[in-house]
Amino acid sequence: MAYNKTENKLRFDYNNMMAKNIGEHGITDKELSSAATKAYIAFDYVERHRGKDMMGWTELPYNQGEIVEDILKTAKDIRAKFDYFVVLGIGGSALGPISVFNALNHLHYNDLPKSKRKAPKFYVEDNIDPERMAALLDVIDVEKTMFNVITKSGATSETMSQYLIISDILKKKLGPDYKNHIIATTSENSGNLIKIARKEGFKTFYIPDGVGGRFSELCPVGLLPAAVTRIDIKGLLDGAQYMDKLCKKDTASKNPALMAALLQYIAMRKGNNVSVMMPYADSLKFIADWYCQLWAESLGKAVDYAGNTVNVGQTPVKSLGVTDQHSQVQLYTEGPFDKVITFIAVDKFRSEVTIPEGAEEYPNVNFLCGATLNKLINTERVATEYALLKAGRLSNTIILPEVNAFTLGELLMFFQLQTAYCGAMLNINTFNQPGVEEGKNATYALFDRAGYEDKKKELESRPEKQDKYII
Amino acid sequence: MAYNKTENKLRFDYNNMMAKNIGEHGITDKELSSAATKAYIAFDYVERHRGKDMMGWTELPYNQGEIVEDILKTAKDIRAKFDYFVVLGIGGSALGPISVFNALNHLHYNDLPKSKRKAPKFYVEDNIDPERMAALLDVIDVEKTMFNVITKSGATSETMSQYLIISDILKKKLGPDYKNHIIATTSENSGNLIKIARKEGFKTFYIPDGVGGRFSELCPVGLLPAAVTRIDIKGLLDGAQYMDKLCKKDTASKNPALMAALLQYIAMRKGNNVSVMMPYADSLKFIADWYCQLWAESLGKAVDYAGNTVNVGQTPVKSLGVTDQHSQVQLYTEGPFDKVITFIAVDKFRSEVTIPEGAEEYPNVNFLCGATLNKLINTERVATEYALLKAGRLSNTIILPEVNAFTLGELLMFFQLQTAYCGAMLNINTFNQPGVEEGKNATYALFDRAGYEDKKKELESRPEKQDKYII
Repeated sequence: MAYNKTENKLRFDYNNMMAKNIGEHGITDKELSSAATKAYIAFDYVERHRGKDMMGWTELPYNQGEIVEDILKTAKDIRAKFDYFVVLGIGGSALGPISVFNALNHLHYNDLPKSKRKAPKFYVEDNIDPERMAALLDVIDVEKTMFNVITKSGATSETMSQYLIISDILKKKLGPDYKNHIIATTSENSGNLIKIARKEGFKTFYIPDGVGGRFSELCPVGLLPAAVTRIDIKGLLDGAQYMDKLCKKDTASKNPALMAALLQYIAMRKGNNVSVMMPYADSLKFIADWYCQLWAESLGKAVDYAGNTVNVGQTPVKSLGVTDQHSQVQLYTEGPFDKVITFIAVDKFRSEVTIPEGAEEYPNVNFLCGATLNKLINTERVATEYALLKAGRLSNTIILPEVNAFTLGELLMFFQLQTAYCGAMLNINTFNQPGVEEGKNATYALFDRAGYEDKKKELESRPEKQDKYII
Repeated sequence: MAYNKTENKLRFDYNNMMAKNIGEHGITDKELSSAATKAYIAFDYVERHRGKDMMGWTELPYNQGEIVEDILKTAKDIRAKFDYFVVLGIGGSALGPISVFNALNHLHYNDLPKSKRKAPKFYVEDNIDPERMAALLDVIDVEKTMFNVITKSGATSETMSQYLIISDILKKKLGPDYKNHIIATTSENSGNLIKIARKEGFKTFYIPDGVGGRFSELCPVGLLPAAVTRIDIKGLLDGAQYMDKLCKKDTASKNPALMAALLQYIAMRKGNNVSVMMPYADSLKFIADWYCQLWAESLGKAVDYAGNTVNVGQTPVKSLGVTDQHSQVQLYTEGPFDKVITFIAVDKFRSEVTIPEGAEEYPNVNFLCGATLNKLINTERVATEYALLKAGRLSNTIILPEVNAFTLGELLMFFQLQTAYCGAMLNINTFNQPGVEEGKNATYALFDRAGYEDKKKELESRPEKQDKYII
């Protein structure tokens, strides 16, 4: 589907980041202009590295023509043959598929009858809780299920455990035909999964070398699951491309992702170590989860490129409007001055529901009668924005004209570019995750894996737990 | 069901909060003993106020005998007559029902056939997004649905809008019989909903005056929805009572909730403004949501009882093990020293799944073969705990022997008491939420509600948005 670009353009509103609106905790025009060089350097870094090293993701909206055709054909096949589609993956291999699925499908998709769904039931299994695996097997028929195993390295313990469990069940039920129930999305060049896939004869899709897990939604990691449930993946890529082009300007005031990065950077420097992501739309609830991984894992770093210990990184917090007005906004308006709240607003919802008359006797309800839920949700967003403004808190708003494949593509690319710019401003490696290695290695040691004997000894010499500190 | 108390006792392990384990950012024995008076004062505050003012929730495990019988009878009736049970509520009227439902029911409950579920499909509608209301109406048959409208004040705009929409649909379809499709859970003494319920003839349950939204899960707000899906609500209350009794000790080292509060209090004073709640069990994922409301709205306060401006409150963050090891742990180990991580561990899962052999050729997968997912999830928890220890980060662990009604009751009461103790240490009002009033009033003004003309004028005089700050 072709989308009108002007009508579907994402807008970034940062009025309420500014001191002139919110007072002393805000950012001044002078602070913004003083940081112009910082912004330019970050812009230049991204431009110089685009498509290289771990920045292969910038090119995904441009270089996947043939892959998209293969995905669309594969997805059509899957719809014809299977009643269930299950993603086995974790982290970046799960959060992208989950967030796009929820944004662009019916909000109770799996509860719809097949005649309305017109595609398989959809599950993403992103944990190894045994109760969850058992529960999944209670509700799917593996003989009518396509499993999409997603891990770039082919060594992710959680995903490979799931793969072993599922492939064993499939083999026992189906014999050699089992191979037609598994698609592997992995590195073309390295790791176990590609070896297994070739040996067993699974259909495969590749994760490009320069695309890390949290930047992988716009490659086959995300595109295949999306296409299976009939999401317009070309629209998604078109939207991402449009945003990428909007961000080719080297001045923050003209480049929305660069300005968004710069504002967070300045806010962090002023002690705002919490970034709240608060969409006012149920469909975007899981986009906040995806953002949280992107922001936390990219920017939460101990050292910078100059070798300084910096221990930087905002803690991202997911919140949902209006729901979390009733759980979090008390803290946001009255607690510490340590947050930036980012609203995601939707101009036009895909349904309209009117609140009927019938409460004439009850004035504190009656004022709602005759209005739509559409008006109510957006009014509450404006009201919350005002409450934060009055309390002197930093907020900004990303506005989507509507939630559709194109605007969602814009939003994903916006966040990816914002993250890359912000990492460059912090002078850190945005694309690695050294801090998760320690936990992985400790797991290997505790499993007595060969080669981890020293780590095992190290673990055994950790301080023993004292009973007096257990109540 | 009667639970063995010893076998089901929750344990609180705070070894890794201590400086002797984690180093300079930890808490010393001396700091703990210096704070003994603080802890005693908080304990004494809770004891003196128990059952009074807004602390009616402490007595819920003791004083609901007749109510429980009514709920059980009503729930049985609902199971016999209805295929769908829908909660209309928001904030405290939703998070409790959601979290208990997910902890104690099948993880894909609504996907089970009716013969296995043996109870209605279950939905909690805690937002006013029009797309979500439309989606709900696509998947339920209102003629076979019982709606439980929950709002203490009877003035919650979101819930009353939902009520008006649903009651209008029911009336049109069912005529006078519509009243048998709505149960109102609300204040007995005030508000619109009780008036409407009496006029229309709805079955009602009452929210006691001294029980605020976020402390209401163990009153009919939570008990009725739980009972409908066959959750053992007597077990839940028994567990809560057991924890309440365990916390009758006036010394932190013997009172788990008091110690948990004290440690967070000391950690906050040292600049740890983020509290991460990370259960290692899919069933407890939504308990983290419930905790986030409880902690944020209770402790996020601008002024203390002495009238000082304090702007206190940790930002609670929900996380899920092992899933969020792949999204958040990088930040937790390498980012700022501003967090306390609370793990929730489960000794014994209700299912066991073995990882089969079949990866002999792939050593970095083969070490998993023959182990269970049970071992893997708990080993990864221990490994993550170790990685945090090594990085000098504060963590503690709440251990449930198993997830069942009794241990869940313990957990809910543990968090409620911890919150009350911590609020007393901070010398703030734990039970109000003045910071949400501004947003509510702004919504009324934007809806031109009578009596809010001045607020409307105030809103109209807010700084106008400048186009140059919208990209």
